[in-house]
Amino acid sequence: MYEKINVDLMNNTGIRVVDLRSDTLSKPTPEMREAMYRATVGDDVYGEDPTVAELEKRAAELLGKEEAVFVASGTMANLIAIMVHCNQRGSEIISGDCGHTFKFEQGGTAQIAGVHTAVIKNNEDGTFSIDELRKRIRKNPDFHEPISSLIIVENTHNICGGKVLPLEWLEKVQAVAHEHNIPVHMDGARMMNAAVYLNVPPSRLAKDVDSVCFCLSKGLGCPVGAILAGTSGFIANARRVRKAIGGGWRQAGIIAAAGLVALDKMIDRLREDHDHAYQIAKDISNLKSELFRVNLDEVHTNIVIMHLDERINPKEVQAR
Amino acid sequence: MYEKINVDLMNNTGIRVVDLRSDTLSKPTPEMREAMYRATVGDDVYGEDPTVAELEKRAAELLGKEEAVFVASGTMANLIAIMVHCNQRGSEIISGDCGHTFKFEQGGTAQIAGVHTAVIKNNEDGTFSIDELRKRIRKNPDFHEPISSLIIVENTHNICGGKVLPLEWLEKVQAVAHEHNIPVHMDGARMMNAAVYLNVPPSRLAKDVDSVCFCLSKGLGCPVGAILAGTSGFIANARRVRKAIGGGWRQAGIIAAAGLVALDKMIDRLREDHDHAYQIAKDISNLKSELFRVNLDEVHTNIVIMHLDERINPKEVQAR
Amino acid sequence: MYEKINVDLMNNTGIRVVDLRSDTLSKPTPEMREAMYRATVGDDVYGEDPTVAELEKRAAELLGKEEAVFVASGTMANLIAIMVHCNQRGSEIISGDCGHTFKFEQGGTAQIAGVHTAVIKNNEDGTFSIDELRKRIRKNPDFHEPISSLIIVENTHNICGGKVLPLEWLEKVQAVAHEHNIPVHMDGARMMNAAVYLNVPPSRLAKDVDSVCFCLSKGLGCPVGAILAGTSGFIANARRVRKAIGGGWRQAGIIAAAGLVALDKMIDRLREDHDHAYQIAKDISNLKSELFRVNLDEVHTNIVIMHLDERINPKEVQAR
Amino acid sequence: MYEKINVDLMNNTGIRVVDLRSDTLSKPTPEMREAMYRATVGDDVYGEDPTVAELEKRAAELLGKEEAVFVASGTMANLIAIMVHCNQRGSEIISGDCGHTFKFEQGGTAQIAGVHTAVIKNNEDGTFSIDELRKRIRKNPDFHEPISSLIIVENTHNICGGKVLPLEWLEKVQAVAHEHNIPVHMDGARMMNAAVYLNVPPSRLAKDVDSVCFCLSKGLGCPVGAILAGTSGFIANARRVRKAIGGGWRQAGIIAAAGLVALDKMIDRLREDHDHAYQIAKDISNLKSELFRVNLDEVHTNIVIMHLDERINPKEVQAR
Repeated sequence: MYEKINVDLMNNTGIRVVDLRSDTLSKPTPEMREAMYRATVGDDVYGEDPTVAELEKRAAELLGKEEAVFVASGTMANLIAIMVHCNQRGSEIISGDCGHTFKFEQGGTAQIAGVHTAVIKNNEDGTFSIDELRKRIRKNPDFHEPISSLIIVENTHNICGGKVLPLEWLEKVQAVAHEHNIPVHMDGARMMNAAVYLNVPPSRLAKDVDSVCFCLSKGLGCPVGAILAGTSGFIANARRVRKAIGGGWRQAGIIAAAGLVALDKMIDRLREDHDHAYQIAKDISNLKSELFRVNLDEVHTNIVIMHLDERINPKEVQAR
Repeated sequence: MYEKINVDLMNNTGIRVVDLRSDTLSKPTPEMREAMYRATVGDDVYGEDPTVAELEKRAAELLGKEEAVFVASGTMANLIAIMVHCNQRGSEIISGDCGHTFKFEQGGTAQIAGVHTAVIKNNEDGTFSIDELRKRIRKNPDFHEPISSLIIVENTHNICGGKVLPLEWLEKVQAVAHEHNIPVHMDGARMMNAAVYLNVPPSRLAKDVDSVCFCLSKGLGCPVGAILAGTSGFIANARRVRKAIGGGWRQAGIIAAAGLVALDKMIDRLREDHDHAYQIAKDISNLKSELFRVNLDEVHTNIVIMHLDERINPKEVQAR
Repeated sequence: MYEKINVDLMNNTGIRVVDLRSDTLSKPTPEMREAMYRATVGDDVYGEDPTVAELEKRAAELLGKEEAVFVASGTMANLIAIMVHCNQRGSEIISGDCGHTFKFEQGGTAQIAGVHTAVIKNNEDGTFSIDELRKRIRKNPDFHEPISSLIIVENTHNICGGKVLPLEWLEKVQAVAHEHNIPVHMDGARMMNAAVYLNVPPSRLAKDVDSVCFCLSKGLGCPVGAILAGTSGFIANARRVRKAIGGGWRQAGIIAAAGLVALDKMIDRLREDHDHAYQIAKDISNLKSELFRVNLDEVHTNIVIMHLDERINPKEVQAR
Repeated sequence: MYEKINVDLMNNTGIRVVDLRSDTLSKPTPEMREAMYRATVGDDVYGEDPTVAELEKRAAELLGKEEAVFVASGTMANLIAIMVHCNQRGSEIISGDCGHTFKFEQGGTAQIAGVHTAVIKNNEDGTFSIDELRKRIRKNPDFHEPISSLIIVENTHNICGGKVLPLEWLEKVQAVAHEHNIPVHMDGARMMNAAVYLNVPPSRLAKDVDSVCFCLSKGLGCPVGAILAGTSGFIANARRVRKAIGGGWRQAGIIAAAGLVALDKMIDRLREDHDHAYQIAKDISNLKSELFRVNLDEVHTNIVIMHLDERINPKEVQAR
């Protein structure tokens, strides 16, 4: 599943990196195709698609949340979460400065949701300083200030190289958030990779956040779709926002059927991806080149970051 | 395909209506399932899904437009069209007061796109007065006024009972629009029903508008999806907006495959739906009840509107 | 105070009208200049300007509301009211189709506030049908629909020719609004003209609405400013929104001082304006021209509408 | 002019600071009161206030820009500048992380303008790294990315302690901006303090930016108002946006008259403020306390920052 190498020079560490990434190119398995072929469907806009309902129920259980909603993409899941949590005017989210919603979702937080972002420098492991988090929270904001309404964490952290967030760090984030009565959303596009890496159930990762999403496409191999989960009230509002942005879909049970296969069969299989990625990293490392190197400790999941010497043109690496 | 009766008391004519409607509940045909099972796919976010590409190309040709983009729903298609045509601040669209985007898309025009709407009373046939249209266009708007940036027409017109817009009226709308250099978008969620009714190719309906969308779900039977078409420049911008609202999808070729079947096999089949609807209308009419009636001249396509006497509770009719 | 004639062809009655209007051109009186010269001031952004505080207190009392805030314009007052009442996503206001906020505030409702508008045809007297109001309220809105969050009335009604809204009609609007738990905002830019016409205190007009604004400029002669009033909670939120749109001002007591003079001396003086306008109307009427006419019954306050024959070019009348 | 001490713990350097600040509390001089008393006025909404026109003309000349517009506050000036420069959907501005628009304007960039912010860590002198600026500019942004549409600099830099931006740094910012065809806006709320510090005309500071604003209140002593300047086209659009947010004001010549006095008499007087501030700083420094200190090199203009030892409670300092 590593057909492509993207070059990313926007990493805030200032080092030049090549991001080996390809899980968005994954294709549905034969079993998924079979399931889609046989899927029972209905009009999901009216909540009448039994396969979608089943997927949403199973996904909510997997995440230990009350309810879930099936949406078209991880970007849509994050956007909806932001719009629901930040329902009042003048809201602000707190995010790491390498967060996907902050850097690579076309500024939808501001553009579509009208929500401002306070940023904290991400550490190389995808976390950020808990002290900085405390400082970024607006205590008794006066009218010069937006209202701190949401904290976003990303797990695994894409731009930080597929890093898995430590469970203790998540607990600390949640403690601070609770203290100030601010919800936490986990952009868990690749959270199943994190669960596999840590060898814990996905609900363990989601335990310390108020809402969470993950992609059924990418490593899990479904053609289309993502899951957003949270409390029943949150999901009711999420369904409303989903409709407003045109994300209501009709007989979505066809693709939800692939999602059910993914939940059953594809999560454990991610371990193979990780092993594969680690092997690639090891091979590169063994070349002992002066021009590029890979830090094996940094390879948690299915993303390998190569540190390139200045003499190397990343496009050339990509071409190879 | 008429499994459900929706009651709509929001018709602006002030009469109480029952809207027999169900095409949103349509299910994919066996041939579609077969095509989805066999579909070749790729990552459509990067433009690499050959089945999506094929569907977009075929749909653009059918509509006589330069390019098309495959999106998750008719609401998404309309929202994107509004956001692209109204790219400058302080934009206003002109719409009939029974238009679907105006009444039933959660006010997304304002909520998501930040665009104001000037309204003209819809006639019972789904058209509106060309004179009123001229008046609603802001000529040399000063800073008290928004900028007239888009005219929306709906074909067939849902709330007006599935009415087909007369071709001559569309030409007049376009003439006024051109005179003032304002684009026209056709919400053609059910435009294939209109093409079948008028016995003209879909491109004839789209000839007088700058952008157009239609649903592959509803009467055409696909599980999910809609097409938005226009110039190449318009579609390039539409792809950008689609991504911002989370409508970028990965291996969407699976469902695009059903769309290709729909374009080949399902358009002409709509005639059966129309005959079926007309037969229902005739049966109701033949009951010669004093409590309800159907105007057969008003039954153009697949929507039948019952005029109810005040003594009747619409919920009862629905229950039956 | 009638130095200018504006031509307005956007009246929805379809008749050609000339709107004799000029109260926006009013200039401060010597007494106002004196008061401004002597005004004690402080930093109003921090609530420390005593003259502003006094004006806000006096204005709130005059309107029978808990609190008031001093803002830069009537447009700002309306925009803030909409943003505060419609604090949740997917909100909709209900407005007459000749309402100033709907037609002449650059679509700020949608553009800045992201709020959709449902419209009811205005009667010639500035009211609209209570039955239509009931229909426009979204009862138990599903996700296709925005949420009815505010009803706006305008008093006097500018585009309808300075008409004063009947007190009984306002009571009926409020009754329907209460029944559905929706607040009512009165755009009372010229409400003092209405109070003078009806010979009631301004608080009587404001009794049946949840928030209300009026202009200190226009007929009351202040150089700059408007008042927005409502409950304490509403005004606290209004101050926040005012700051966000840049309406927080520093030593605004200078101009607030003119406002205090206006509250003391200028309201009763409006009667002279009305007499003056009526006299102009009578003079025009006495000309018994076939080319233009004035309906004396329609002249309530300080706006005179001339009905022009088709043969007359409004620009000519304006030139004279 | 130093009546108040604000405590600011949000400084991103992580040190505890007390910001001695009070220029927002300045009051109009007798000469300003006299000028306001005698001001000739007209309806500025229609461009007919001669005193406002004179102020805008004089201010534009002072800044070396084609035109200027008189607005209610510095926040309004910045918001308008952002809305005009970022007129297309999906825009992003680039700002220092201690910028006033980023931290203390209630997130209006996102909330009102729908614009995302990319941030660069501010240096202690109010500048940021030119290398980082290059990295933050989105080159050929794909649809995952917003469009870099504006760079904002702040001069003097409020949160960084009233620091004056070096002229050479401004030139470098402009060089990078031009290279990528991105405009630069200077939030010059206190730019006259910078001009006085550097002993250059204000136009020299504005030479390297496309638009610029400064406050007439604060150190210049006017009761209300700010100036926004740029090209004629920019200002025409700014007037439109000003009206949309309710910033159009009628006989604003009253307060513009104070602005004219400020341009004539108050700019040079800022030198006294700076001397005064420096003297305070020196006195504090001479105390040679272990509990707090002031870095005299950091005192450029009228803001003095005290570095407090952990044992000191900032509220106590403020109380004294």
